[in-house]
Amino acid sequence: MPGIEHFWAVVPAGGAGTRLWPMSRSASPKFLHDLTGSGRSLLQDTVERLTPLTGDRLLVVTGARHRDRVVEQLPGLKHRRVLGEPSPRDSMAAIGLAAAVIERVDPDAVLGSFAADHVIRGRAVFESAVTLAAEVARDDWLVTVGIAPSEPSTAFGYLRQGAALQSHDGAFVVEQFVEKPSLEVARTYVESGDYRWNAGMFVVRPTVLLDLLAVGHPELAAALRALAADLGRLEELWPTLTRIAIDHAVAEPAAAAGRVACIPADLGWDDVGDWASLAGLLPEPAAGAPRVLGRAQDVLALDSSGLVVAAGGRRVVLVGLHDVVVVDTPDAVLVMPAGQAQRVKDVVAQLRAAGRSDLL
Amino acid sequence: MPGIEHFWAVVPAGGAGTRLWPMSRSASPKFLHDLTGSGRSLLQDTVERLTPLTGDRLLVVTGARHRDRVVEQLPGLKHRRVLGEPSPRDSMAAIGLAAAVIERVDPDAVLGSFAADHVIRGRAVFESAVTLAAEVARDDWLVTVGIAPSEPSTAFGYLRQGAALQSHDGAFVVEQFVEKPSLEVARTYVESGDYRWNAGMFVVRPTVLLDLLAVGHPELAAALRALAADLGRLEELWPTLTRIAIDHAVAEPAAAAGRVACIPADLGWDDVGDWASLAGLLPEPAAGAPRVLGRAQDVLALDSSGLVVAAGGRRVVLVGLHDVVVVDTPDAVLVMPAGQAQRVKDVVAQLRAAGRSDLL
Repeated sequence: MPGIEHFWAVVPAGGAGTRLWPMSRSASPKFLHDLTGSGRSLLQDTVERLTPLTGDRLLVVTGARHRDRVVEQLPGLKHRRVLGEPSPRDSMAAIGLAAAVIERVDPDAVLGSFAADHVIRGRAVFESAVTLAAEVARDDWLVTVGIAPSEPSTAFGYLRQGAALQSHDGAFVVEQFVEKPSLEVARTYVESGDYRWNAGMFVVRPTVLLDLLAVGHPELAAALRALAADLGRLEELWPTLTRIAIDHAVAEPAAAAGRVACIPADLGWDDVGDWASLAGLLPEPAAGAPRVLGRAQDVLALDSSGLVVAAGGRRVVLVGLHDVVVVDTPDAVLVMPAGQAQRVKDVVAQLRAAGRSDLL
Repeated sequence: MPGIEHFWAVVPAGGAGTRLWPMSRSASPKFLHDLTGSGRSLLQDTVERLTPLTGDRLLVVTGARHRDRVVEQLPGLKHRRVLGEPSPRDSMAAIGLAAAVIERVDPDAVLGSFAADHVIRGRAVFESAVTLAAEVARDDWLVTVGIAPSEPSTAFGYLRQGAALQSHDGAFVVEQFVEKPSLEVARTYVESGDYRWNAGMFVVRPTVLLDLLAVGHPELAAALRALAADLGRLEELWPTLTRIAIDHAVAEPAAAAGRVACIPADLGWDDVGDWASLAGLLPEPAAGAPRVLGRAQDVLALDSSGLVVAAGGRRVVLVGLHDVVVVDTPDAVLVMPAGQAQRVKDVVAQLRAAGRSDLL
């Protein structure tokens, strides 16, 4: 079998991708879309990136309503490798269930959890970092990948890097996880050089993960192991699970207990958080033209810049506007300055308040 | 019969309205659209405005391809009152044919020619001005309506107002017609106070119009009269007619010959030349909101201003952009700053060059 021996990938495919409205919708979220012009969805890109490391040892955990679309997008994956959550119970339940399933199937497993809707451009660096992370994880560490911050972002959590691990060149102890900081705090982090972005990747032995979880949430760890023993009880037990993020349930307390390591790596990582960050992932356009995602032949731009997403099957014409974002879909079109990309959240909130769930 | 005795209206319904793309199309030009939010097309508004002055003495001259749509929009008009031009031959042929038809039907007629795609907000002033113009026209003048210029526009022709007519209070001799001037020249016109915009309305006895035409273009005048005598020859004779605007064929030489009068009137006239001027005709919006033409319930705007035309049946969302124009139609969406409204011509030219006549 190819890849890293006994290495399993868990791909949580969830999240609404609200800031990528109107393309990302609750019925068709971000990970199902091609947002890079690669011709593949973010989910397909994620699985393709992992396959050399895992072979077919890969589980996708997604909402039950998205299961058919996920199976359809991943024809090479066995159907039973796609777990459908009856309802959203946050990342600990999703990754923890996969861990409990893998723990039973392969007692020597190391798992890596990788979001379905992130972009990683540095493929070779990614493979090296994950290979090293898997080695470190065999020594019972919870291993993360730390991204050198390019700016004092307030959109990501940070981790404070401590001493180098004696046993593994290139790995460090993580002294602390910190949640999304204020801009001021983020600046001090970046200046200090001691902090890295938490890209949300965890590499760990399933048993270690569940045992770390059992320290603070014994009932959740037990329920996940019970579920893995009998997936027929999913509908019954799932709604009873504690709703908590893996960062809070495991990563933060484990770091405090000195159980977390990190592999610093420049992966070319991007979480494609909003339209402005998406624009940065697309090829440089000709002078006077915007970047285009979708059908370039549908876009006519005179003396403009920014981003046009042509996904509505219609002609999009942009004249004399700079750093603007135009997203055209069959039932909605969004126009705004790239610098206000975060305000899409407000749009979605207003549509929700107006009862326009058909558009969300 | 109601209205001004023996007064006939001629409504040339032509012109592509290129600068109002993507709403105005060659197959569905400007005059067929509701561009003011009145619930009626510009053509319907024009006919409704004229009916109190003319009763059913009204002829529409339009392209043969638009004839069915015109008839459909004007159910109160007898079908034979809509003349279909086999091909575009400019304004002299269109108005001249109507004049020749009316000359035969009503020897005492005075006709007024009014474009189908202009807006007039001052209804009472319009009726008074046309009533006076018709009286002056009975004395064999070619009578125009002169609009006090609100700015040194380079989009309109001007007329130089001369001495007051002794015979008719409120009417003046026109000394000269001038074509669209440069901005510099337009400024001197506006400062002098002697110039008015030529709104393209002509009130004149049909016989006077055709006789004035016959001075410089005897063959055209003769052909139009021959056609009126036998409309069965339309397909045969129409393509042989000289292509010339009524301004050049009649108004300019007649003014030089001292045969033109004008009625200065503040009509609230607008030729709806482009999206920016259209925006000015729509009701003042709430603070932070753009003006909306079309379905207001389809528009969601946060902290924005300008114009949204919601004619695509989709949700249009505008965030944080000011003085912007967004025109949404079923097969094309246009986004640009209001200040660059004239550049729509360039868009249409590029689409034409690209062979996208389906969008024009």
